[in-house]
Amino acid sequence: MNMVAKHAIWPRENDIIFGIAGKAAEAVKKFGKEDVINSTIGALMDDDGNLITMKSVFEQFRALPDAEISAYAGLAGQPDFLEAVKENCFREYQPDAFIQAVATPGGTGSIKHAVWNYTNPGDQVLTSDWYWAPYDTITEEIDRSIKTYKLFNDKNEFNIESFKENFNELVKKQKRVLSIINTPAHNPTGYSLTDDDWKQVLDVMKAAAKDKENRISLFVDVAYIDFAGKADEKRKFFKQFSNLPENVFVMVGFSMSKGFTMYGFRSGAIIGISSSEDLVEEFKYACIHSGRANWSNGNRGAMATMTAINNNPEILEKYSKEKDMYKNMLQDRAAAFVEAAEEVDLELLPYRDGFFVSIPCDDPVKYSDKLMEKNVFVVPLKMGLRFAVCAVSEEKCRKAPALIKEALSEKQTSENIA
Amino acid sequence: MNMVAKHAIWPRENDIIFGIAGKAAEAVKKFGKEDVINSTIGALMDDDGNLITMKSVFEQFRALPDAEISAYAGLAGQPDFLEAVKENCFREYQPDAFIQAVATPGGTGSIKHAVWNYTNPGDQVLTSDWYWAPYDTITEEIDRSIKTYKLFNDKNEFNIESFKENFNELVKKQKRVLSIINTPAHNPTGYSLTDDDWKQVLDVMKAAAKDKENRISLFVDVAYIDFAGKADEKRKFFKQFSNLPENVFVMVGFSMSKGFTMYGFRSGAIIGISSSEDLVEEFKYACIHSGRANWSNGNRGAMATMTAINNNPEILEKYSKEKDMYKNMLQDRAAAFVEAAEEVDLELLPYRDGFFVSIPCDDPVKYSDKLMEKNVFVVPLKMGLRFAVCAVSEEKCRKAPALIKEALSEKQTSENIA
Repeated sequence: MNMVAKHAIWPRENDIIFGIAGKAAEAVKKFGKEDVINSTIGALMDDDGNLITMKSVFEQFRALPDAEISAYAGLAGQPDFLEAVKENCFREYQPDAFIQAVATPGGTGSIKHAVWNYTNPGDQVLTSDWYWAPYDTITEEIDRSIKTYKLFNDKNEFNIESFKENFNELVKKQKRVLSIINTPAHNPTGYSLTDDDWKQVLDVMKAAAKDKENRISLFVDVAYIDFAGKADEKRKFFKQFSNLPENVFVMVGFSMSKGFTMYGFRSGAIIGISSSEDLVEEFKYACIHSGRANWSNGNRGAMATMTAINNNPEILEKYSKEKDMYKNMLQDRAAAFVEAAEEVDLELLPYRDGFFVSIPCDDPVKYSDKLMEKNVFVVPLKMGLRFAVCAVSEEKCRKAPALIKEALSEKQTSENIA
Repeated sequence: MNMVAKHAIWPRENDIIFGIAGKAAEAVKKFGKEDVINSTIGALMDDDGNLITMKSVFEQFRALPDAEISAYAGLAGQPDFLEAVKENCFREYQPDAFIQAVATPGGTGSIKHAVWNYTNPGDQVLTSDWYWAPYDTITEEIDRSIKTYKLFNDKNEFNIESFKENFNELVKKQKRVLSIINTPAHNPTGYSLTDDDWKQVLDVMKAAAKDKENRISLFVDVAYIDFAGKADEKRKFFKQFSNLPENVFVMVGFSMSKGFTMYGFRSGAIIGISSSEDLVEEFKYACIHSGRANWSNGNRGAMATMTAINNNPEILEKYSKEKDMYKNMLQDRAAAFVEAAEEVDLELLPYRDGFFVSIPCDDPVKYSDKLMEKNVFVVPLKMGLRFAVCAVSEEKCRKAPALIKEALSEKQTSENIA
């Protein structure tokens, strides 16, 4: 017997990452943290395995009066916060277009808004074959599903051919197509689309937009943008969203989780970009309605914190310096991992930026289990293993590739035993 | 031309309360706050019109280390928080049943979970004719709608006859019926179902449950419970949720917004209650899936605050005393308003507890406008005016009824002019 409606019956499974993280914690207790590599956590950790929280951020947060944290925020988000979001997201690369932002609980809320409001029940949403698993949860919850294109071609470059083929197939079938592109610093591969990749993606979309009946929408998930590239170079692509055809609607999912180390606050925004003022207004009211119907309004204290940082050049400078220090730390760790992988000839997907590196392999659960025996904890994906350089010291990042290579090479042996 | 899907096109309207609150702020600037009665705000304000924030709560919140606020919470919510939610919600009246809780962003998130998971597209959800307007937003967003029964009979008692008639009609039509009851301290009327009202409601549900094909679910919105009655007397009804038939599934929407003056944190939970262990497990996994698909996880710092208060008897005592002080303040204000209304013969709906009092009238927008001319700011509802005693000093609560009576009596005059 069920009491929930049919669409609400789901497998009673617990989060796989949570389970592996639990085993990693046990291993630390048993063997000591020096001998355990726990690369399961999707947050920036210091070399001792403690969560990094930015001083410049928490100083501003703690300076807020109680009433500024306690009060309800407006349904769309506080107006000064929404301005700060736009400035913080685009910096000097704000597209030449009409732009509106609406507050959401983290990046997830912004993805939900895009999928709910820009697709119909039964629709497929396009993303790459390496993707963040909750895209499945978000779409299947509301009777949508994920269709994938191959992220990389044989040369490990962005596979524009596969994107084009699958995108055009969907346009033909649905007329209305939402594509989700997680870049820069893609989770889980660490790939960042180049400005030229972007040009090609938008050319495909513009070609489809020539049929005025088509409705092309694009959601760019930039959750990790603050840890990508040098300075703001990985924001340049935003400029390409200028002067697009009216039936190409672009949304950017902005999150305070990583860039401000405010994961647990649940604060972010969805930004709508269009050549049409009317269409960004339509976007705003659709998102306000969805927000009211899902979570009412956003975290007031988080909004006020970001506004305080963004609107004071001195504080902004302090924050940027602290963030860049951690960005450099992350880049050093990733460089160590990539270099060590080359030395032992471990195949990686083309890492450019961000929290994660991916190792393609068959039967990822088997190798994840095998690595646990070596006290290396990684997350098994559908097509490989995810190693979180954000959570592991540079020293351990240098050690890990050899251990992973070793585990992957044990293939025959263990199959013989089985 | 539209870019959003058809179901996402909504009227481009701004919140009516926000507009009136803006006019109240202008009036304060022009005439001084002594001469303005602003009863639009749905939060506890001191006599000077400042938001009340509980010291005992913010002390605990501010004592948390940065990392405890910054980290992601688990998808279902932190386990110790979920235990604290159950204890805090039920106190000594925990029903004899299987119980599971899942964290949500405020009370709104819990309503969304109940409506989404326990009804089908096209279904009507039953609530009283006086109801919180966002129930419309939440249901219409996902192709459900609200059906109402009359809350009061001619004697201004709970209208069990109307409830029974409309409930049975829906059961016959849909087989699956979700009822939402906002009590104690109903928004907007301030009514609280008596223990006998509850017995009658549950008798109607149990009768319908005799047909084992029927799926009866009940959502109790207790957002204002911490400000209702003396001590925990308004929690007694929870005991009636013991040993219900398996096809009567009860959910309670718990919110930290009012009881902890943490409105802007967006923290709450949905609690599932059933005679069947399997059905509360089904509930839990449905809500975790929905949570992951909408907002991912909840506000970690708010969870930790409530756990810290709940799990330390000394701190809990301090918090309870502070909360009771404000509860007494609220009850004094409401008593002053009700008494003054009797003196001038102003008809009120039967107020028992909580933040709001309602005055039934035709053409509420007209009278709200008229009251603005007298510097009295109220919220016009479909069938009357809502006065927020939570936001107005006792002195002004004593003055307001005469001004409202005056405005309502000007009916003929203004119609003559028009």
